[in-house]
Amino acid sequence: MRAIHIVTTRLSSSFIRPVLLDFVSCSPLRQFSTPRRFICAASKVNGGSRSGSIVAPLVVNEEFQNIDVNPPKGTRDFPPEDMRLRNWLFNHFKEVSRLFGYEEVDFPVLETEALFIRKAGEEIRDQLYCFEDRGNRRVALRPELTPSLARLVIQKGKSVSLPLKWFAVGQCWRYERMTRGRRREHYQWNMDIIGVPEVTAEAELISSIVTFFKRIGITASDVGFKVSSLKVLQEFFKKYGVPEDLFGRVCIIIDKIEKIPIDEIKKELGFTGISDDAIEQLLQVFSVKSLDDLEDILGGVGEAIADLKQLFSLAEKFGYSEWIQFDASVVRGLAYYTGIVFEGFDREGKLRAICGGGRYDRLLSTYGGDDIPACGFGFGDAVIVELLKEKDLLPELGQEVENIVCALDKDLQGAATTIATALKDKGQTVDLVLESKPLKWVFKRAARVNARRPVLVGKLVRSVSRFCLQVSNFKSNLMTWSSSI
Amino acid sequence: MRAIHIVTTRLSSSFIRPVLLDFVSCSPLRQFSTPRRFICAASKVNGGSRSGSIVAPLVVNEEFQNIDVNPPKGTRDFPPEDMRLRNWLFNHFKEVSRLFGYEEVDFPVLETEALFIRKAGEEIRDQLYCFEDRGNRRVALRPELTPSLARLVIQKGKSVSLPLKWFAVGQCWRYERMTRGRRREHYQWNMDIIGVPEVTAEAELISSIVTFFKRIGITASDVGFKVSSLKVLQEFFKKYGVPEDLFGRVCIIIDKIEKIPIDEIKKELGFTGISDDAIEQLLQVFSVKSLDDLEDILGGVGEAIADLKQLFSLAEKFGYSEWIQFDASVVRGLAYYTGIVFEGFDREGKLRAICGGGRYDRLLSTYGGDDIPACGFGFGDAVIVELLKEKDLLPELGQEVENIVCALDKDLQGAATTIATALKDKGQTVDLVLESKPLKWVFKRAARVNARRPVLVGKLVRSVSRFCLQVSNFKSNLMTWSSSI
Repeated sequence: MRAIHIVTTRLSSSFIRPVLLDFVSCSPLRQFSTPRRFICAASKVNGGSRSGSIVAPLVVNEEFQNIDVNPPKGTRDFPPEDMRLRNWLFNHFKEVSRLFGYEEVDFPVLETEALFIRKAGEEIRDQLYCFEDRGNRRVALRPELTPSLARLVIQKGKSVSLPLKWFAVGQCWRYERMTRGRRREHYQWNMDIIGVPEVTAEAELISSIVTFFKRIGITASDVGFKVSSLKVLQEFFKKYGVPEDLFGRVCIIIDKIEKIPIDEIKKELGFTGISDDAIEQLLQVFSVKSLDDLEDILGGVGEAIADLKQLFSLAEKFGYSEWIQFDASVVRGLAYYTGIVFEGFDREGKLRAICGGGRYDRLLSTYGGDDIPACGFGFGDAVIVELLKEKDLLPELGQEVENIVCALDKDLQGAATTIATALKDKGQTVDLVLESKPLKWVFKRAARVNARRPVLVGKLVRSVSRFCLQVSNFKSNLMTWSSSI
Repeated sequence: MRAIHIVTTRLSSSFIRPVLLDFVSCSPLRQFSTPRRFICAASKVNGGSRSGSIVAPLVVNEEFQNIDVNPPKGTRDFPPEDMRLRNWLFNHFKEVSRLFGYEEVDFPVLETEALFIRKAGEEIRDQLYCFEDRGNRRVALRPELTPSLARLVIQKGKSVSLPLKWFAVGQCWRYERMTRGRRREHYQWNMDIIGVPEVTAEAELISSIVTFFKRIGITASDVGFKVSSLKVLQEFFKKYGVPEDLFGRVCIIIDKIEKIPIDEIKKELGFTGISDDAIEQLLQVFSVKSLDDLEDILGGVGEAIADLKQLFSLAEKFGYSEWIQFDASVVRGLAYYTGIVFEGFDREGKLRAICGGGRYDRLLSTYGGDDIPACGFGFGDAVIVELLKEKDLLPELGQEVENIVCALDKDLQGAATTIATALKDKGQTVDLVLESKPLKWVFKRAARVNARRPVLVGKLVRSVSRFCLQVSNFKSNLMTWSSSI
């Protein structure tokens, strides 16, 4: 996103109908064909926006340092135009979550490092922003939200009634190698259900993401969800006698299937000690794209297939069947998933995963808590914006202010202030011009902030009375306006 | 704030009027006096919320670690009840800012350390959460937002039209000694005006804070603003021939006037090399409480007094005269202020400063940019909550969900899902019960989430037809309801 100030043509001069109002009563006194004399009067006052006339004369005793004016590598500023897009996106995240009855939560962006050190092999572990604080505690900027959520659930213990349906939108940090479009911080929308062992939970989570997509104009022909279950792998392990303790490591290797050559995958799997024969079988399982084929390979309907069948059946009831497809290669790169896993992808295959999640029924016990069945997803703010750009679906969001109020003479700043305050007391947004500025400047600013109504406070040159001049660009009835403030 | 689940009595059983709806058409079929048979039917289904029946049987190969379930010392989790309060507060911050025509911005929470290392003596410097990242860059969690704002303004350069009116609500970090109510992170609301040299800017900033106070029920008898100008000190320096390069150090010492004994202040001032006579005079200046007395001491109306007089005159126009008072002892603890400074305080004197700000016309040049006149304030989220507690003004905020939808039989989960989706498509919030639960459980949950309408999907025992049972706690007309979905 670039810093573009959207300038509308709303304030076309042909629409300007200046009207004089009595300052106190706001009743109309006299109409002028053009506001030219006010322009002249106002032009005499020097704006001087960049030269601070009352800057104190003291010499600064700082060591002069030219700092880098860019944010640290991999991080972002949010100037107004980017913040509007962020707010637009986050509001959709939040509104969808509330529509589904979820409650918002948050956790510290700085957590105890131990919370994120779970398992060797996880990429996340080597990308931690971690350090020792002034009290010699090992801390880390959170790379994801789920561990903090698990910590809070354990802490709350029996004081909360299950199930919990929680959502969060929070910033996460990973020290990644910088490539195009990949940053070191991103915001992540999470929705989690704690306390529901049934597949209805995963089905609802996917439904909420679909609802979000629909709201922002993304259709089932733009994106889809690949769905699988880690129980597939568990059942395979049982069938082929692979030791269960290899589960996490194998998942992390399989997650790279589409990113590195298949020979590399085989080599890495070989290092775990799995036999070559089992590796071939395993890779066959992960290339399966239909539940029927999977049933053949696993030799019957186990928990994995039953769960997946239930999910596809629920998808029909939720109304998003066309969005999901079975794909055994989806395992997600986090070691804590235990059941259904899913991943949102763009059908053109241009982008990384848009979102992902699944069931993590045993995460709590890894932190010393009692396990509670749980599932959730993470949805970043980066890939979705890329997708919206691709599909030309980015919204045009300008600043919107109802009134711009300006004194055309320095003496009238007080009067303008009073009018601005009256408008704000009525709940109307006001950009009050804080300096004496020429009329031309005011109109330029009014256009820039998309002000619907410029309110100019001026003096009549041939009279000692004070007036309020309203220049309106739409067919507002003067009496309506004066009675409305 | 404690974790209290607000249980309303809205779902008093005397109001329950169960009604059967045909599942497909949602037209009423038959009315029942009590839903007892549904209770019985549903009771047979085992809820088992905490025991996950389909938890996978694999052994977890983790090193078992009991992590601390509390957030790191000095930080907070935001469970739903705290998050509601945070959202309530932040929404007021944001709505007031928008009312005044300010645009929202944000910056990275992790910044280059150099941005915050300005001047020895500033408390803030010794409280930085700073470290070296994996790329050997010195970085720090931001202790305040203003330096980042200054950095962004320099970066934007001439591409933006002045003045800028920006606001932000962001988390800030300081490694402070933990005392009651003092944490190591807090959220801060900032409003800043870049490019206006006139006192109208400071006047508008104070007006926006007053507007915020009024909205949340705080009056001028609860809080006030102490206002001064650092030009007072500058003029004093000139008059008494104190070297200008002592300005920053003296400000930081004076800021402690109410916190440490006066003898300590004198000693610290002595270390700077100021003569004992000048110290006595200086302390006299800072004890002044009226502009007239100040005029006597400084010997005439300089810029300091002119600015302050203009501010008090504008306060009248903005309508907040009763909120502000002159107090020379206000200097703020940050070295970058150059003109008007102000501080919000509780009149009972129980709390630390509620907010504070002022003019910082020369901050940009300390970073190597061209100076632009600027002013702003910071308003933390901690002290204001303490004040609201003191004044018994904390709002009662419960979760609010329009519908709770529940299948009374496992077979009907799909039907319940379809109904929930239909309601959500209409924009109604829905908490869908994802497991088979007894009716009693559903009502308990409905009360907990403040659901206005429980929608129970059940089967008629004596019929093979399926029905939708609506149990409503208010006088909703059934036909209205069925036509509204």
